Amino acid sequence: MTPAGRRAGNPDTRTEILEAARDEFGESGYRRATIRGIARRASVDPALIHHYFGTKDELFAASIALPFAPGDLMDGVFEGGRDGAGRRLARAFFTIWETEQARASLLGVLRTAISGDERATAAFREFLLEALRDHLAAHIDGDDARLRAVTVASHLVGMAITRYVVRLEPVASASIDDLVDLVAPRLQSYLDQA
Amino acid sequence: MTPAGRRAGNPDTRTEILEAARDEFGESGYRRATIRGIARRASVDPALIHHYFGTKDELFAASIALPFAPGDLMDGVFEGGRDGAGRRLARAFFTIWETEQARASLLGVLRTAISGDERATAAFREFLLEALRDHLAAHIDGDDARLRAVTVASHLVGMAITRYVVRLEPVASASIDDLVDLVAPRLQSYLDQA
Repeated sequence: MTPAGRRAGNPDTRTEILEAARDEFGESGYRRATIRGIARRASVDPALIHHYFGTKDELFAASIALPFAPGDLMDGVFEGGRDGAGRRLARAFFTIWETEQARASLLGVLRTAISGDERATAAFREFLLEALRDHLAAHIDGDDARLRAVTVASHLVGMAITRYVVRLEPVASASIDDLVDLVAPRLQSYLDQA
Repeated sequence: MTPAGRRAGNPDTRTEILEAARDEFGESGYRRATIRGIARRASVDPALIHHYFGTKDELFAASIALPFAPGDLMDGVFEGGRDGAGRRLARAFFTIWETEQARASLLGVLRTAISGDERATAAFREFLLEALRDHLAAHIDGDDARLRAVTVASHLVGMAITRYVVRLEPVASASIDDLVDLVAPRLQSYLDQA
């Protein structure tokens, strides 16, 4: 039963469910998150979530559609050419993580991928494959462009874990400027094959 | 009830329990791992595990005593001075992860830390603090030695997640030599403040 006044096809309802799913996956991780809990957050009936998105797996897959388009992001990073792209990438990465909604979403993705759940890991791998590696590798020269792209992504993911998940000092409370200054030259050297 | 022929104080039994715990935490993560499951793996009674190690939390803390001493590891990495330490550190890191027992242990630590469980995250933070950051920072000059040490650790942790957890290609099946060649110069530049 849907709450009164909401049409089943209302796009706002879909959006609200996805936002609730991101919050729930982010706070609880994939395993502990429940359709019931997500329904409660979104003030809808669990049956409506199943109707829109199917299983918890499918809802998760829909929910990791992040609040930015990775292709557009990479186009922005490389708009001024490869010079300075390491710095722009580092700044874009940390800026996204500093945004509350994006951070909740990304934490959910990360926790899920690392939980040992094979389907969720596959979802994360597909996301990383499509969203980051290939967009990034397109801007790197050489036979090992994909290896370098994944290494850049790995470094950034490691920084996110240290700062936002484990909260290890002094990275946890460093300024974004300091982190960008530190990381950017190494990202750039991966991009340049130096 | 302990199996016949085993003394309660037998150090082998403790070792077997810790090995079983590492396996169980590594495969199932902290949340899903149970004392009962660990007892089954170690062929002991669950009560014996409680007797030796206390709670699941305490058993976890004992189990993340890794199969190497981080201080000794860092001493080895820096034995020949800081020149080439980036390469030695990268090789030591991947070599440990390629060892089956160490990988099971480290995966358990990583999954647990990222699960969102605050106590487990704290345990991981303490481990990283004591085991890696401070040992590493001791070999780096400058006011930002700790920041650089954590950044080096972050890069390596990110590589481990990509290769061993998410198994993202081409990092997942790259040779250790290729990964060391790629990562070592960037680790070195963090160590050198270049």
